[in-house]
Amino acid sequence: MAAVSTPYDLYYWPVLPGRGEVIRMILEDAGVAYRDVARDEGFAAITAVREGALGEPRPYAPPVLKHGDLVLSQSAVIARYLGERHGLASSDERGRLLTQQHFLGWSDLMAETHETHHPIAVGLHYEEQRDAAKERAHHFLANRLGSWLDHFERIVSHGEGHHVPGVMTYADFMARFVIRGIEYAFPSTFDRHRPQIPSLLSLTERVEARPALAAYLASDRCLAFNEHGIFRHYPELDA
Amino acid sequence: MAAVSTPYDLYYWPVLPGRGEVIRMILEDAGVAYRDVARDEGFAAITAVREGALGEPRPYAPPVLKHGDLVLSQSAVIARYLGERHGLASSDERGRLLTQQHFLGWSDLMAETHETHHPIAVGLHYEEQRDAAKERAHHFLANRLGSWLDHFERIVSHGEGHHVPGVMTYADFMARFVIRGIEYAFPSTFDRHRPQIPSLLSLTERVEARPALAAYLASDRCLAFNEHGIFRHYPELDA
Repeated sequence: MAAVSTPYDLYYWPVLPGRGEVIRMILEDAGVAYRDVARDEGFAAITAVREGALGEPRPYAPPVLKHGDLVLSQSAVIARYLGERHGLASSDERGRLLTQQHFLGWSDLMAETHETHHPIAVGLHYEEQRDAAKERAHHFLANRLGSWLDHFERIVSHGEGHHVPGVMTYADFMARFVIRGIEYAFPSTFDRHRPQIPSLLSLTERVEARPALAAYLASDRCLAFNEHGIFRHYPELDA
Repeated sequence: MAAVSTPYDLYYWPVLPGRGEVIRMILEDAGVAYRDVARDEGFAAITAVREGALGEPRPYAPPVLKHGDLVLSQSAVIARYLGERHGLASSDERGRLLTQQHFLGWSDLMAETHETHHPIAVGLHYEEQRDAAKERAHHFLANRLGSWLDHFERIVSHGEGHHVPGVMTYADFMARFVIRGIEYAFPSTFDRHRPQIPSLLSLTERVEARPALAAYLASDRCLAFNEHGIFRHYPELDA
């Protein structure tokens, strides 16, 4: 494995937060040297990686992290790798397993949120699948979102403010990102859920108050949510 | 952590293979004592776990593994935990990271396959969303399945027959399960892809030839694919 001081190269879409955002958050929080390669070089850098520019086996999709001669994809794997190297992990095996479990839970919720605007095909525009999207969003907001939020509120409440008691982990960072994403995508529905999730809202604010993260969030390195990403605000879906 | 000799309790739907099947495969391959609790006690055992019977924080959904006082959910986390304890993991960190990455890739493909028959809501019957399912399946089979299979074929080909060179891992088990699932769901389409994936087909057969797994697959403990599960055969979707 490369030394911690070896710089990191992150490959992720340069125009949206998304699966790469929690990786950016971890790197910024750690204050380590990293290059957000496609912000410098454009989409072509990602295309090259998907065509084998970093070697074989090539990754299926970004985010991709290169660290020395190690090349990783899948946000859960990258987040775990970085989180455990940079102080965002439990010191015991049980805590590390649960951190990964909770991260993957938030990933599942994020994936369900993405499906609300792309229920038919990722290769079609939203406007080409709007009717199905309205149906999917209706079911998601009526039957899924509340149970997911109940689930995570219970975890963080039992964890005394964290997913794993007593320690800030990359699962907490992921929670902050997904909470802000859902708030952006479905502001009206989210407002109705606020009283249900005091522990999650408090955690979100505590993550964002970490000095290095606060500086990142206020910088132009941090991309705003928009309608190219996973979390999109289409008012007709927020019914 | 509990000793390896502590029995395992698995909670998963007793009527279908699915996200729990790779866990069953790992336990059977290892030849360890385990109880498939809901096969004995029915759905009520799963409902109880989701309502906190194994303690807090309760899991969101099965599969759930109880080992001593450790309770885990998320198939990727359980598979890693068991795989690393029972000889289905790399001996170095790079290999362990890549195993998890590839497992999650197969999980993504499995999730996309599930969406083909439930594009609108998991809470609705297939028959209530058949038109959208036909559209989703068309796009999946035309634009996604081939690129996923190319991706994994390249990995296993570069890995000399495994996802991680030289070692049989729980990612190889997951590949076998998803390959068989897609073959079941879309037999006509899958037949056309066979010439494209010699390494994956060989791996599938080598996994199934492991003596303990061969015995499991031939036993009544192994549930057949059916139309309650993730991989469902609806001829109208296999166009």
